Amino acid sequence: MDTVTLAGYLAGTLTTISFVPQVIRTWKLKETKDFSLAMLLLFAAGMSLWTAYGIWINSFPIIAANTITFVLILSLLWMKIKYR
Amino acid sequence: MDTVTLAGYLAGTLTTISFVPQVIRTWKLKETKDFSLAMLLLFAAGMSLWTAYGIWINSFPIIAANTITFVLILSLLWMKIKYR
Repeated sequence: MDTVTLAGYLAGTLTTISFVPQVIRTWKLKETKDFSLAMLLLFAAGMSLWTAYGIWINSFPIIAANTITFVLILSLLWMKIKYR
Repeated sequence: MDTVTLAGYLAGTLTTISFVPQVIRTWKLKETKDFSLAMLLLFAAGMSLWTAYGIWINSFPIIAANTITFVLILSLLWMKIKYR
């Protein structure tokens, strides 16, 4: 794999795993006041479209990264609605 | 432009603009307790790599979307450090 492709994979991995500490923190604090509901909704909509795009162009890295991020964002959205 | 490419652009636009209502909300509330610092740092690192990736592969949409997201995340990170 060349350096550029590796950088792309590393970028995708970083943005995907970044939501893990956030989900853990929100799960522990049970507080979501600081989050914008519009942000979570727009981001979740974007993620579902990214996943659809990945399926269309048959790109496994795009499908994998965006499906994981989508699930993490959905859990934040669920906690935002539950702990408001 | 075909439907697939259009979906990709729409997905990128949604995930990029999603941070605008978040920056506005955080700016108004001046509260960032609910945010994970690790999430903001990992996401900012990922965004800077995505931008570098866009420059390498010479893709204007990737450069544009990720530069805007990077600036929005940096402003959240700045507020996270300022209003803790």
